[in-house]
Amino acid sequence: MISPTSQVDQSALDQPPPVKIALLGFGTVGTAVARLLDARRGQHSLALTHICVRAPERKKVDWVSDRVCWTDDIAEVLRSDVAVVVELIGGLRPAYDWVRQALEARKSVVTANKQLMARHGSELIELARRNRQQLAFGASVGGGIPILSGLAQGLAGDRLFKIYGILNGTCNYIVTRIEAGAGFADALREAQQAGFAEADPTEDIDGLDARAKLVILVRVALKAEVWPENVLCRSIRDLSSVDFGYAHELDCTIRQVSRAELREGKLLVAVEPTLVSRRSPLATVEGGENLIISHGEFGGETVFSGLGAGGNPTAVAVVSDILDILRHPSRGLAPSEGPAATPGEISSDFETPHYLRLVVKDSPGILARLASILSKHDINIDAVLQSAGQDKAALPFVITLEATQSSRVEAALAEIRKSSSLLEAPLRMPILP
Amino acid sequence: MISPTSQVDQSALDQPPPVKIALLGFGTVGTAVARLLDARRGQHSLALTHICVRAPERKKVDWVSDRVCWTDDIAEVLRSDVAVVVELIGGLRPAYDWVRQALEARKSVVTANKQLMARHGSELIELARRNRQQLAFGASVGGGIPILSGLAQGLAGDRLFKIYGILNGTCNYIVTRIEAGAGFADALREAQQAGFAEADPTEDIDGLDARAKLVILVRVALKAEVWPENVLCRSIRDLSSVDFGYAHELDCTIRQVSRAELREGKLLVAVEPTLVSRRSPLATVEGGENLIISHGEFGGETVFSGLGAGGNPTAVAVVSDILDILRHPSRGLAPSEGPAATPGEISSDFETPHYLRLVVKDSPGILARLASILSKHDINIDAVLQSAGQDKAALPFVITLEATQSSRVEAALAEIRKSSSLLEAPLRMPILP
Repeated sequence: MISPTSQVDQSALDQPPPVKIALLGFGTVGTAVARLLDARRGQHSLALTHICVRAPERKKVDWVSDRVCWTDDIAEVLRSDVAVVVELIGGLRPAYDWVRQALEARKSVVTANKQLMARHGSELIELARRNRQQLAFGASVGGGIPILSGLAQGLAGDRLFKIYGILNGTCNYIVTRIEAGAGFADALREAQQAGFAEADPTEDIDGLDARAKLVILVRVALKAEVWPENVLCRSIRDLSSVDFGYAHELDCTIRQVSRAELREGKLLVAVEPTLVSRRSPLATVEGGENLIISHGEFGGETVFSGLGAGGNPTAVAVVSDILDILRHPSRGLAPSEGPAATPGEISSDFETPHYLRLVVKDSPGILARLASILSKHDINIDAVLQSAGQDKAALPFVITLEATQSSRVEAALAEIRKSSSLLEAPLRMPILP
Repeated sequence: MISPTSQVDQSALDQPPPVKIALLGFGTVGTAVARLLDARRGQHSLALTHICVRAPERKKVDWVSDRVCWTDDIAEVLRSDVAVVVELIGGLRPAYDWVRQALEARKSVVTANKQLMARHGSELIELARRNRQQLAFGASVGGGIPILSGLAQGLAGDRLFKIYGILNGTCNYIVTRIEAGAGFADALREAQQAGFAEADPTEDIDGLDARAKLVILVRVALKAEVWPENVLCRSIRDLSSVDFGYAHELDCTIRQVSRAELREGKLLVAVEPTLVSRRSPLATVEGGENLIISHGEFGGETVFSGLGAGGNPTAVAVVSDILDILRHPSRGLAPSEGPAATPGEISSDFETPHYLRLVVKDSPGILARLASILSKHDINIDAVLQSAGQDKAALPFVITLEATQSSRVEAALAEIRKSSSLLEAPLRMPILP
């Protein structure tokens, strides 16, 4: 028999008290999370109670409720009864220590920190498990695109073996500007003015940002563990509008593509500027958008795209993670979520067709010499492209190669680089269908 | 102090005993689910123990483990200790009764049944909640595309207000064949031969299949409850290659588009053939693929696409749902998952530009009469298209209209239909950017 008391208990179970949340950091994403929580007030039992920042008195804003405690003392946050700590300070220190301390203090943690999760993700996931807390990092890849939940939950039943896409909006903005005719330096300046690129754009342009995201995707989708430094990462700095001209002749465009493929325990992985067919979804990605494609043994190809960065989209991912924690207060660890395995071999030696752009001082017999080197390395030439009206003293032309391993192309290039006719280092890019 | 005994208990918690699963139905999807579970054996603690079908002795296959019990008696399944019942029989009866009985017998249920979830979803979700069981239906929309988990979990932090896409692969196959020059009847026959269309293709072609999926998407994404019969549903039967010719002139193509938008408590919703810009992701969907776009107040536009049907992709969704149940054995109901609300008003009165295709017996003054009727209804003509070399006795031509409510266009068409020069009922389609 159900007594009135037990009925009250039942309803208390259905309507838990508000879950208290602390924000670490109050930059673009932190501000957007606070605003989003504010906009949803009443709709969810979420209560922002602490904001931990350096110089809280200077950072304090009046639209945040008076009941929120502003502090610069992480210990104060960890001593409190907050249930979820949201880490939005970025970088490895002190983020790593604070996330560890939060988990050890039996707080669940939500983080948007890709570098932290790329480097220490497995260790922190294990620490969360040991402390029976949750560590959610949906905001660390793809901003507002629900890619990590899609891979970890929606596609959990498949065996995924390939994942690739456009993971860095800044690079994508820059390459689309170069495609429209801008030089690299101007395109970068525009990206900085549009608020895409940081003052120091190295992380974006040289692929380190995309690499961290790819490492996380590889862990979640392919269940493989790879150290960021073991991922080939090539810059988009050497691209010029000449390359887009030739790419268009090949019915392609150029994007910074991150990709990984697991084959018989061997992981292929790279972040590099890549020719992609104009018919590929990758070619349709404009400006700051991201797009990710997964391939599964059973479910085939699945495509996710949307706004990969920015305060509001990233805040959506953070708040969705908080709601997911709320929904699964006593979340079990499914066997599929066991630790990722270290692949038997890690390389960037994908087998694809290639694009080689060479700038030479034109003289008789150059092409014959190049063809002979390529042939010696068992590489077949697919086509030679040379646009009309170029400067013969510094002639950019392109050789496309039939599908071959990139290591073989690199070996041939090592020899080609010795040629005295070469005026610039050759640019090699894979070509994706 | 942790005793050795409590350590054993701890590890028992981490490695739960296999979760027992029953399949109801063993058609294309049921077979694929059994194969997928078989392929994952050892990887997950999932054990298929029952298959419930009519005439089990005839259906039995030898690649399924001997330990599986084949039965035609649902009561036997419900009396057993299976934890998850997977309903793959389709249709409303007996699926509705069996799902109810399973939930009441304290089994969690996974279903791919879109008609069941469209009509009885809210009631069954509530029944599951009361019985502290889970009802997962990720396979009911979009096959292998993790759209429902993406909306319900990955985008839970946003406020979604618009969702649209291509939800029926058969229709998409047919329209792409008509676009390539086939007549409707031939395109349908090809779809049937390719295994896309059912012997009775009404559900697909007249939009009833897409409508059921849209009703489920509206519930999950927009938290709004709508009865299938209240959703406008227009067939693709009247499309001809003439329409694709005119669509191409407008830099568009034609797709069966399902869409819904929530504005100030009012729900706009429709399934109908639609002109879409060639630059829209909708235009790139080929063959049996599905593509769904959501719009959120904070996270902007998110696109999901992939294989929307077929045994294996749907089986991935089913097994992912089972794993999700396994992962969240004591799942709480988050406030965001409360019952969907009935909108204050439901209509199909979207405001868009329109395409009108008219077939007339050409005579002087026809266009002037049509223009005068449209003008009387405050509708502005954008362009008049008439391809050269058409038969003057049965002249198909097109009028495009500036953005206006579809109800206004229908009112004008009611008047136009009275014209004696009209040889066929006019075809009206919205135009999406």
